[in-house]
Order: sequence, then structure tokens, then C-alpha cells
Amino acid sequence: MAFGWIDEQAAARRRAGLVRSLRPRPADSPLLDLASNDYLGLARHPEVVAGAQEAARTWGGGATGSRLVTGTTELHTALEHELAAFCGFEAALVFSSGYAANLAAVTALAPHGSLIVSDAGNHASLIDGCRLARGTTQVVGHADPDAVRKALGTHDGPALAVSDTVFSVDGDAAPLAGLAEACREHGAGLVVDDAHGLGVLGAGGRGAPHAAGLAGADDVVVTVTLSKSLGSQGGVVLGPARVVEHLVNAARTFIFDTGLAPAAAGAALAALRLLGREPERAARAREVATGLHARLTAAGLEAVRPDAAVVSVRAPSPEEAVQWAADCRAAGLFVGCFRPPSVPDGISRLRLTARADLTEEQIERAVQVIGGTRP
Amino acid sequence: MAFGWIDEQAAARRRAGLVRSLRPRPADSPLLDLASNDYLGLARHPEVVAGAQEAARTWGGGATGSRLVTGTTELHTALEHELAAFCGFEAALVFSSGYAANLAAVTALAPHGSLIVSDAGNHASLIDGCRLARGTTQVVGHADPDAVRKALGTHDGPALAVSDTVFSVDGDAAPLAGLAEACREHGAGLVVDDAHGLGVLGAGGRGAPHAAGLAGADDVVVTVTLSKSLGSQGGVVLGPARVVEHLVNAARTFIFDTGLAPAAAGAALAALRLLGREPERAARAREVATGLHARLTAAGLEAVRPDAAVVSVRAPSPEEAVQWAADCRAAGLFVGCFRPPSVPDGISRLRLTARADLTEEQIERAVQVIGGTRP
Ligand SMILES: Cc1ncc(COP(=O)(O)O)c(C=O)c1O
Ligand SMILES: Cc1ncc(COP(=O)(O)O)c(C=O)c1O
Repeated sequence: MAFGWIDEQAAARRRAGLVRSLRPRPADSPLLDLASNDYLGLARHPEVVAGAQEAARTWGGGATGSRLVTGTTELHTALEHELAAFCGFEAALVFSSGYAANLAAVTALAPHGSLIVSDAGNHASLIDGCRLARGTTQVVGHADPDAVRKALGTHDGPALAVSDTVFSVDGDAAPLAGLAEACREHGAGLVVDDAHGLGVLGAGGRGAPHAAGLAGADDVVVTVTLSKSLGSQGGVVLGPARVVEHLVNAARTFIFDTGLAPAAAGAALAALRLLGREPERAARAREVATGLHARLTAAGLEAVRPDAAVVSVRAPSPEEAVQWAADCRAAGLFVGCFRPPSVPDGISRLRLTARADLTEEQIERAVQVIGGTRP
Repeated sequence: MAFGWIDEQAAARRRAGLVRSLRPRPADSPLLDLASNDYLGLARHPEVVAGAQEAARTWGGGATGSRLVTGTTELHTALEHELAAFCGFEAALVFSSGYAANLAAVTALAPHGSLIVSDAGNHASLIDGCRLARGTTQVVGHADPDAVRKALGTHDGPALAVSDTVFSVDGDAAPLAGLAEACREHGAGLVVDDAHGLGVLGAGGRGAPHAAGLAGADDVVVTVTLSKSLGSQGGVVLGPARVVEHLVNAARTFIFDTGLAPAAAGAALAALRLLGREPERAARAREVATGLHARLTAAGLEAVRPDAAVVSVRAPSPEEAVQWAADCRAAGLFVGCFRPPSVPDGISRLRLTARADLTEEQIERAVQVIGGTRP
């Protein structure tokens, strides 16, 4: 029978305790949220909501076509200009998601005959970009500029190093300066995904590349998402104008995809302007993360020291991680639970996100619940 | 220098007259729109706009996380239930785009050792799905069930045929009944992309699979987009509950992508409900397309007879196609212009879309402009 093998896989998942299922949340959830990626607490900010609403009123429910036909509104262009200026890059290009932006950047910048050097801890969308690209991929050890240097040294022709700036699972930062140096020694381009850096790292949340002095460099391309600190949906590639022009002409997830919905562009633009006016939100998110980590560690939990706003806590096994998250939930706390196959190293963990708008009392409550339910 | 090869490609594009550039549109464009995929004229319908606004007010600017963490709201679930019921399938799963839905369906349903038989005219997102999948792809001639049958006959193990239902460039329909028959003879699954069928074909716009008697079949999986007839953004996979459960557990563009923005889900749900109340919109879109084709043909133009709401008109060359579209624009008409590398056969064309809300006078004006500016 068609799709018969699916049932065998489902049975194997059940046996391994790795079944995932969707749990719809209500609009007025009573849970304390340490699971979302709404780092700056902007997703439900009145100005962000108004940005979405105003855009829907002005432009309608959808962009109505691909960006090269009817799908580029003046709103998309405004968002691109303001985000490029904020992050310090010459140009920007908006996509329907961060996933699509990553597929575009990697595939369009790694032609036939090129080499892509990819960090072992990279996000699924960068990995899929490597798989789709015409170039050859070499995966190197996590956060290791020397390994990147060595891999680049084996290749003649266009080359690219690809890395998250902040790794989504453990929240640790990539050695950006070292990566850039390794790339420059070999004339290679550097593509970094600042999904978890924008809004949190760098002056006023300008992102990890800005903090590393790489903003505006002609050999650096940055991808970001509008779905985390900016509380919306969408993805953006930032870089030299010639790279952006190349993507317009060559990136399949740009050319053959409907433009980002106006409401999402409007919400992201409102969030960006808000961050421009209230730059202290970025520092506050980092401060909450540091405080959370310190208290978890003091409580004897094995937490990774956060470089941005993600705090990862080790769990002994997938089953115990799931149970731990469920116990937190029962105690009023919503935490993320990452386990195979969504973790590169097979280690299960609770994943906590530090929001800039968490109060000291909420942080304290979260630590008490997590400590009190530990396996 | 890093990215140096980009400049060579840019120069080659300029020489070939194939440079694409973005042209932002204003909110109050005076152009008559025959370029967007807003087939039912719903993108700016007050109920659809209100659906987006109400969702943003209730849920915020973004879904705040992946669907398996915080990104599934009750609104996403409602959209999934209502769309599955409307199209006649057991279950549905919402993605951030139609592109992501296609990547998910093909990759998750074509495991290692499987065969994918893919129509030569398929959309870029299905092709990328084939490239990403672990299975082996065999591309077969356009709209040819016998070729599919033959290809499936060469393989032992899980197999899949993949096709657009309505091909995006020429607007011709796939032979769905024949494809399903070929698949059933070999116990293969059938995945069809109804991006351009939903809202236009089938009773009240229930789509091409519904019209072909395939709705609810346990060996058929349908992908749709929310960005065309439903005037919003997003994509959906429709099929048996076991297939949807499999996607939740296995599809990377589902697991590792932020959930669709609430405003987009709200706009699409409002459009779907509107279509349920006003089923005549679907027939009207088809009628406009047929009328447009008849008048273009009567004017001596080479137009493909439309099976849905896309009307394609041949142009002699890429340069003339671009000039033709520009001349239409100067005369107040916005038409699509498809040319290499965005066309599978290298033939450039104007691409017109028939909207259900076009008046007879507007159709007449469009035909006069297109005829009067022909190369
Ligand atoms: C590091 C990283 N890159 C890219 C993405 C994809 O972005 P989006 O969800 O906006 O598509 C995510 C998360 O979803 C991510 O964590
Ligand atoms: C046939 C087809 N499938 C899929 C897509 C992708 O859908 P979306 O633009 O919603 O991502 C499109 C158009 O964009 C399309 O024409």
C-alpha cells in the first residue's frame, strides 16, 4: 500500500518514546512563557500589533504574487532599507521566512564547483541549503575556526563558510572574528545566520556580526529572521548590494515564492522602530539570560552559560526531558524540550528563552519550578 | 575576492537581457492588475483584512516559535480543520509558505531507497523537494501518465509521483485521474500541488483533486498555498491523518520553522469562510479566464486554453516579452512576464491571471492593450 512504511516508522517512534504531537495554545494561556523566541517581548506589543493591522488595512491580506511580479510593496522596500541601515549593511532582501532566506543565501552563493564549509551545529535550514546547493559541503567541528581554515585550504575556486551566530539549541555563540579571519585568508565568503542574535547582541540589538565588527564587510552575508526578536514572521538576507542583486536573480526561494504578507512586514517594521527607540531591550534580554543561568547553576542544574538569550539545561534522557517539561507545564511554566532527532549531539535538554520583559519575580518562579521538578 | 564570480554572472545576465529588478508598488496603484495570483479578488476584501487584523489583535504579530513549541495556536488548528473539511481530506497541516509545504511533503514522503517520479513542468518548490529528498528522482515528460506508469514499473520499494495540478506557467491541468490510476497500479503514492487549483477548480473551489474524485483517498496527498485564491500567505498539506502525523514528526520545514503568523492564518480562514458562503466566485474566475482566452485568440494572439485561471500568451523572445509587458504597463495594464530561467521550456510569455472580480469592461480593456502592444 502507498505510504505503508509510514506506519512502521510511527511504531518505531512510539517504541523509542519520540512521538511529537501538536498542542494548540489558547490566546490567554495562564502559563509563564519561557519557551517562545519572543526575546524582546514584542510579539504582542500594541505598536507591533498596530503595525500588522495597519499593513493589512493598507495592502490587504497577502502580497498577491512573487516579489518579482506583484509581491513587492513599498512596505517591503521600507523594511529592507531600515533593517539594512540598522544592522549596518548596504542592502537587504526580505523572504517569507528565515528558513527560505537561509536556503537562498547558501544555494545562490555556492555554485557548481564551490566548497561550503559548514559548522556541525548549524540550523536545519542552513543544512538544507547545503544539501540543495550545487557546491560540495564539508562539515567541520563545532565553533572551530581552525577546522574551517583547514577545510578552505583544501579547495581551489569559490568557497563559503556557513555558521549560526548563536546556536539555537545550546545558545552558545560562534567565534565570528576567527571565522572571518579564516575566510579572508582564503578569499572565501562568510554566511552567518543571526536568527538568535538580532535584537539581543550588538549595540542596541544590531546583532552578532555588528558586535564582531563585520557589519558592512564586502565578504560577509548575514541572514536574520523576523520571527524571533521582531515578533513577526519572515526572513532577511543582509549584505553587499551586489550580493542582494544576485539573490534577486538567482535564489529560487526568492523568485518562486509569494512575497511576505504585508501584515508580517508591518509588524516587523514596527518592532524594528521600537527597538531603535528602546535599545535597552537588547541588554535586558541578555541580563535576564545571565541571571537565569546563574540561578539555575546555583540550584545545581547543568545549564550552558548563555551568549545570547537562550539558556539550555541538560536532561538525562529524552523520556526524562519530556516528563520534566510536562511537570513544569503542570506547575504553570512553559519551557521548550529539545531531543533527538532535533538535537545535533543526541543530548536532550530543556530550552529556556530569556525575554526582556520577564520580571525578577517571574525568573525566580521559573527557577523554582525547574529545580523542583528535576528528574 | 569572495563572491567575485557574482560579477561575471551579472555581466552575462546583462548581455543576455535577463536582468531582473524589483519594482515596489504603491498601495493605490492605478494599474489594472492581471498579474497577481489573487484569483478570487479576496486579498483586499474587508472580511479578509478584518480576519488578519483580528488575529493580530488576539494572537500578536507572530506565532513566537516553531509549531511544536509555542507556534501552534487554536487559530492554526481551526484553519487546519476547516480547510481539511472543505477540500474533503481527513487532516491538514499549515506551513509558513506553499514552498515550505512542498519541500515537506516531498522530502518526508520519499525516504532513502524510494523513487520519486516528477513531471518536467513542476514548480520550483516541488523540484527542490525532489533534490532534498533521500529518494531518487526520475523526471518524466509533461502531463504523461504512461510515462509515470513506466517509471514506477522500474522500481521496487516505496514510490511517489509528484505533479502540479495546474501548471503555473501555462495554466494547463495535469491528468489527475490518469496519474492516480498509474500510481495505484504500482502501489505508489501521489502528491499533487493544487496551488493554482484551490478556489478555482472543483465544486465551489474545492480544488482539482476534489474535481477528480481523489479527495480523501488514502494514497493521495495534496499541497495548497494560502497565498493565491485565499489572498494571504502560507501553505498546507492535506491528506490522511497518518501522513499528517508523519509530517509533524519528520518534515524539517515543519519542525524547524516558526509557525505561520496569526494574521496570515486569520486572513486565510476568513477567505475560506467567504468562499464557502460565495461558491460562485470559483466559477466566475474560470469564466473570466475562458472569456479572456477567447478574446485574445480572436485578436490573433497565441494563448494557451486555460484549465483554471491562468492565461499564458506566447512572446517571440525574452527581450520582446519584457518590452511587451513594459508597453502594457505604460498603457495601464499590469501583466506577468515569464522568461528564462523561470520557464521550463525556454519560451517567454506574458502570464495573465483571471480574477473573479474583473468586469467585462476591464477584460475588454486588457485585451485591447495586449493586442495593441504586441511585438
Ligand atoms: C538559527 C535559526 N535559523 C533559522 C531559523 C528559521 O527561521 P524562521 O523560523 O523564521 O523560518 C530558525 C528558527 O526557526 C533558527 O533557529
Ligand atoms: C505551483 C506552485 N506551487 C507552490 C508555490 C509556492 O507557494 P507560496 O508562494 O505560497 O510559497 C507556487 C507559487 O508561488 C506555485 O505556483
